Order: sequence, then C-alpha cells, then structure tokens
Amino acid sequence: MKLLKVDSVEETKRKIDHYFEGIYLEEEYIDIAEALDRIAAEDLYAQLEVPEFSRATVDGYAITAKDSYGASESLPTFLQIIGKVEMGETAAHKVTPGKAIYVPTGGMLPQGADAMVMIEYVESLDDETIAVYKAVAPGEGVIQKGEDIQKGEQILSKGRRLKPQDIGMLAAVGIYQIKVFRKPRVFVISTGDELVHPKEEIKPGQIRDINTYTLSAMALNGGAVLAGQVIVKDDFLRLQDIVKNAIAKSDVVVISGGSSVGAKDVTAQVIDSLGEPGVFIHGVAVKPGKPTIIGRVDRTAVFGLPGHPVSAMVIYKVFVDYILQKLQQFNEVQEIVIQGICDANIHASPGKETYQMVQLEKRDDKYIVKPIYGKSGAISLMAEAHGYIKIHGNQEGIHKGEKVEVILL
Amino acid sequence: MKLLKVDSVEETKRKIDHYFEGIYLEEEYIDIAEALDRIAAEDLYAQLEVPEFSRATVDGYAITAKDSYGASESLPTFLQIIGKVEMGETAAHKVTPGKAIYVPTGGMLPQGADAMVMIEYVESLDDETIAVYKAVAPGEGVIQKGEDIQKGEQILSKGRRLKPQDIGMLAAVGIYQIKVFRKPRVFVISTGDELVHPKEEIKPGQIRDINTYTLSAMALNGGAVLAGQVIVKDDFLRLQDIVKNAIAKSDVVVISGGSSVGAKDVTAQVIDSLGEPGVFIHGVAVKPGKPTIIGRVDRTAVFGLPGHPVSAMVIYKVFVDYILQKLQQFNEVQEIVIQGICDANIHASPGKETYQMVQLEKRDDKYIVKPIYGKSGAISLMAEAHGYIKIHGNQEGIHKGEKVEVILL
Repeated sequence: MKLLKVDSVEETKRKIDHYFEGIYLEEEYIDIAEALDRIAAEDLYAQLEVPEFSRATVDGYAITAKDSYGASESLPTFLQIIGKVEMGETAAHKVTPGKAIYVPTGGMLPQGADAMVMIEYVESLDDETIAVYKAVAPGEGVIQKGEDIQKGEQILSKGRRLKPQDIGMLAAVGIYQIKVFRKPRVFVISTGDELVHPKEEIKPGQIRDINTYTLSAMALNGGAVLAGQVIVKDDFLRLQDIVKNAIAKSDVVVISGGSSVGAKDVTAQVIDSLGEPGVFIHGVAVKPGKPTIIGRVDRTAVFGLPGHPVSAMVIYKVFVDYILQKLQQFNEVQEIVIQGICDANIHASPGKETYQMVQLEKRDDKYIVKPIYGKSGAISLMAEAHGYIKIHGNQEGIHKGEKVEVILL
Repeated sequence: MKLLKVDSVEETKRKIDHYFEGIYLEEEYIDIAEALDRIAAEDLYAQLEVPEFSRATVDGYAITAKDSYGASESLPTFLQIIGKVEMGETAAHKVTPGKAIYVPTGGMLPQGADAMVMIEYVESLDDETIAVYKAVAPGEGVIQKGEDIQKGEQILSKGRRLKPQDIGMLAAVGIYQIKVFRKPRVFVISTGDELVHPKEEIKPGQIRDINTYTLSAMALNGGAVLAGQVIVKDDFLRLQDIVKNAIAKSDVVVISGGSSVGAKDVTAQVIDSLGEPGVFIHGVAVKPGKPTIIGRVDRTAVFGLPGHPVSAMVIYKVFVDYILQKLQQFNEVQEIVIQGICDANIHASPGKETYQMVQLEKRDDKYIVKPIYGKSGAISLMAEAHGYIKIHGNQEGIHKGEKVEVILL
C-alpha cells in the first residue's frame, strides 16, 4: 500500500496541469448552428467589414449634410427627391447637393450622401420635393461601413465557450463552419456492494444508487457526452474489467463509492494496473472529499470520488470540471461569483479547503448568505443549496457579518 | 391601421399574464436520467425515508454508547466482538451491552447498537476483544433512519427546473419517472428584403442574416426545441403563409426584422389575419426594442421583434423567455444578479425602461460595472457584454459610483 500523501487543492490542480500538459481533445469543424456551448479551437478574425456598406439607421432621406445646415422649423431647406432605395439593393442614383433619396432603416446609403434626415423632420410637398426642418451633421442616422466590425479584427478567441451572440458575430462575418474541440466523453461508475440499480428490488442494508444520476447530469450540464454508466460491486477483477473498457471509450472516467479504506485501495490499484502514469493524487486536503484519487491512464483521466453524493458532487465540480475544461483549452478565467454577507459563524478545518453549502436570500439590496448543514451523505443538503463558499486552509472560519463570495451550483 | 399604443414593461408582462392565463404546455412522464433542465409538472413527496435504515458514517464498531462512558486513553473499555456487517447486508447478530460489531462506512447499524466508535479509537487485542479508548454519545457516527429525508416530506415543487442534485434526490427516494412539461417548440422567422441566407452569394445592399442564428441559439439555451427557421421577404402573403404554418407547429413564433414602420404593420396584420385574439401589444416603452409586437393566435404566442440583432436579443430575453417560462409554470422567482459599482454616468430615456449592456471587472473584491456602447444594430456590442443593467423609466440615469445590479447574459 502506498503512503497516503494528501495534497492541497492548489497542489492538486498543479499536478493535474503537469500530468495533462499537452493533452487536448481532437478538433472538429461544425456548423455554427450546432456550436452553442462548444469551445472554440481557433482564434478567428473578420475577413470582411460589418456592415459591408454604410447603412441608414432610421427611415428618412439620404442627403449631403451641408444642404441641411441652417434648416429649422421656421426656415426649412427644400430638396429634390431623385429616387428611393429598396431594401437589399443599391441606389440607382447618386446624391448631389440639392438632391435627396428615400432610404428605409437598414437600407444602403447612396453614393454622395453622408447623412440621413429622419422622416419625422421632413414634409413632402409634392412627389418631387421635400422640406427639411432640421439640420443634421455628417454621419447622423448612418452606421458606417466597418463601424461594427473591422476587417482583420479578432472576433473570437480559442478557448471561448460559444454563446448565442458569438454565433451571431460569426454569421455576421460570413463564417458558417467553426473549429471546436469535440465534446468530452465521460464514463460514470458507481462502486459498492450495497448499491442497487434503480429499478431493482431493494433489500434491507442496500441503498439506491444516486451518484450515477447526479454525476451523469453534471457531465451533461458541462457539455460532455456520456460514454457509459455502470454500477459495480467492490471487486478488483470486475472493477478492473469495467474501468479498462471505460478508459478505452472515454476521456474522463469517474468512479465513485468504495469510500472505506480498503475499497479506496482497490480503486487506486485498479487504476495503477491499467497503464501509465497511474494514480498521482492520493487524497486532497479538502472538506468534503478528502479520499479523492486522481490518475491518468494513457490519455484518459480516472477519478476515484467519495461515495457520499454531496462529496462526490463537490469534487466533481472542483476537479472533474477543471480537467474537462483543460482538455478543451477553456480560457475564461473570470468566474462570476455572488457577493453577500454571511449570516452565521462558520467553522472550518484548519489545513483543509472547506466547501460550505449555502442558501442566498436577498434582503434590502444585499445578499444574505446562510450556511446549511446536513450529515455527511445527506443529498437533501445539496438540493436546498444555491451554491457554496470556499474557506481556505489557512482561515479559521468565517464570522457572522463577514463578506463572502458564493459560487453558484 | 391601429393606433400605436406603447405599454411599459410591467404592463406588457401583465397583458401577457392575462392573454396566456391557463395556457400551459402538455405534461409528459420521462425517465429522471433525461430530466436535466426540464421543468417539474408536479409537486413530489417522499414515499419512504432516506436512509431507510440507520447507517454508519465512519468505519468502526457499533456499540451501545453507554458501554463507552468513562472510557479514555488511560482507562479503556473492553468489549467482545460478535460479528461484522457486510455492505448491503443486515447484521446477523444484535448488539447487547458488552458486545460490539464491526461496521464499515455506509453499512447498516445492527439492532441494539446506538453509536459507532471510530476504528481510530479502538485497539484489537485478539480476534474477539477490542479496547475502546473514547466515550461516544448515542447517535455518534450514525446517520439515523429518515434523517436525510422523511417520509411525506416535499422533495420537489412544481415549476422547478431540475438540477443534477434534484435528480439525485429523486433517485434516493426511488422515483425514476417524473412528470414534466414537454419542451416548448420555437419557430424562428427573419424577415427583410435585404437578408441573405447564410450560404448564398451576397450582393451590394444585402446583409447576412444574424437573427435566425442568435434567436435559435437562445431558444436552445432556454431548453426549447426548434420547430423551424425561415428567412422571408417583406411580403404579406408569403409571410402569412409561413407564419400560419409556424403557428400550427409551435408554441412560440418569433418574427424578427421588418423594423421600418410599414413592415411592422405587415407583421401585425399577418398575426391579426390568422386568428384570435391577435396582437395585444403594439410597442413597448423599452430601449432598445420599442417596436415590439406581441400577439396570440389560438394557443401560440407570436412575437414581432426588432430587426437589429441586439434589440432582438434583449426583447427575446425580457419577453420571449418570460412566456416560455409561463407556459411551463416555472416558479423560481429569485433571479440571481451581480452587484457592482457603476464606472461611468449612464443616461437613460425617461419613460422607457433602458437595458444597458455592460462588462464586469473584478477589482479589490468589488465588481466594477462598465457600460459599453455601440450603434444600434452593432452585434459586436453583445458579444463583448457580460450582461446588462435595467434602468427604470422613472430614473433619469445612473451616476458613476452608484451601486447597480447586473443581469448576466
């Protein structure tokens, strides 16, 4: 049996960085319509300008701004209408001093014109003549060629998770295929002699498996696909067989359960038996989740998570998500947190990073953060929580009234 | 032509409530493994206790707590080992005074025992005898039957969006099928003579369609399925034909574009021509997005959104999402916002609710909120924004240094 060496959360992440250096998922080209929430695998630059021509932003007349100078309600300027721009078409004529062309919102500004006067400030005197009652400056009522996006401008960074507006940007510059990382494949295994598959009959002493449900849902939530789900007894050969198959099929294998000392050894031994470099984390200074095991077999990450549903979810969020993001070079470092005032004293375990589940309540424009407790393994705790706060190993705890940051679940 | 009556955001929501009263999506039973992000269509109560038997939360010996009273490092208590509990099985023996049974973490507490003494405080003297070096109180090291979830306890409310931990709760109480609202079907239509379908050749004066991409992605993001996507010219009969087909296939039809006065009339006329009650919102006092149209034909909501990509996205988020949630009786009223300090003065339009796009920057433990600007229709603005702030119609604007709340995009 290896010596149990417990790493801090930061050390654990550094080791993950080291053991997974240069290991990324393959890239693939997909249609932007399928790209929501995928991670971009390339920097992208605009190959054209947006808009590609100067456009009216109001309904009205394209004119030379100079013609309107001095115009007012009492002293209008009179201009000759020489045409109308149809949406999606170019103007047949050029605007010259004394002339005006009607352009609807979004229509192309005719050559020679440098401003739009809104229809509200214009009176049609006859089919050919308008009175303009307001002076407009050059550029008014117009979005200039390239004003939104310039040619050569970076429109997307590698590692960005694509939002609807990013997809809109790509469509705007005529990019309809994008290189992304393929979706990571996650295989979820629950171990334990006491676990019963959902639809089976349950006997005294047995419990229903929760972790394959929660961890699979977390994988889907993070944009992964499920490579498989298995419940298995605490048996070395059986587990070895299943994990071997899982490694061949997936990028991340998550084994939860077997939280007793002996069973944990089995998980670590199975991982080590299947390939190099094997287990590199034997326990993390974190609460909950201390007996966490992390290893790598070939290019696949293999996790041994605690069996308690809450601990397993916390460790998944802290470390499994971290690797899933690394595999796709996810680069959005700014994690948005909710700031609030802690409602009670919270005790922490010195030397351990503690994750305390909390509820949020808005009161007088402030968020009140209430720690919630439940015995180890209580799933109801997690369902009631809005998020959690991190208490670092060198903090003794948090005092009532202290400002805290909540990471949403 | 109807008189243009502009409603406030609150009035608009009240009218939506009124016109969609009692209109909900059908319910369906699905496997909990498929239920992530779906909206529960029933309140659910536990039909059993969790755990269903008292379980050890530590590795050690099940004893009667009284036997340990007075035990200490210098004065241990000696107990007789009468057995071992296997995971997933019941104990063969009962614990009586003077006796102890080994139980691993998660194992069933034997009858007669009321506490666990951790293995760390026990010394095995021979195969049959242990020395206990610590006193334990009744209940120590044990999670009691029903301590996590009690029989009859509500475990889920109708209208809740299911998270991984909710699915875990359901699995824990043996519920594997759940009644949810079916996914809403959204049909996205972009109108405009200037719009070109993604892969077509573009001519001067034409622009690439953005809104079908952004609005479809927003629909998917919100858990809807796409019933269809069409780009159509500003033509009454053609649009009428497409909208009629869309209404038959979907719960919400989103028509964007045609932002000029005449084209807006076409959208409203088309909606009114297809059934009752027709258009009930002609314009909203909101910036951006004033020319918004909302109607209902039979049970389907039909939106006329502005053609500008940013305006269309804002109105989608404010009103389309609102209806999609209503149709599923979504009841999570607490919208989590980010609180920060505004970095600049922001002007607002009196009488209109203004949505100002912003970026967030964390500085000295505070979020700094920076308004970002772009001309109407600039898609790049949206891609750079982290979220937006709402400025109410009766506010004149926001001053630099003022506390604001950011709704994340």
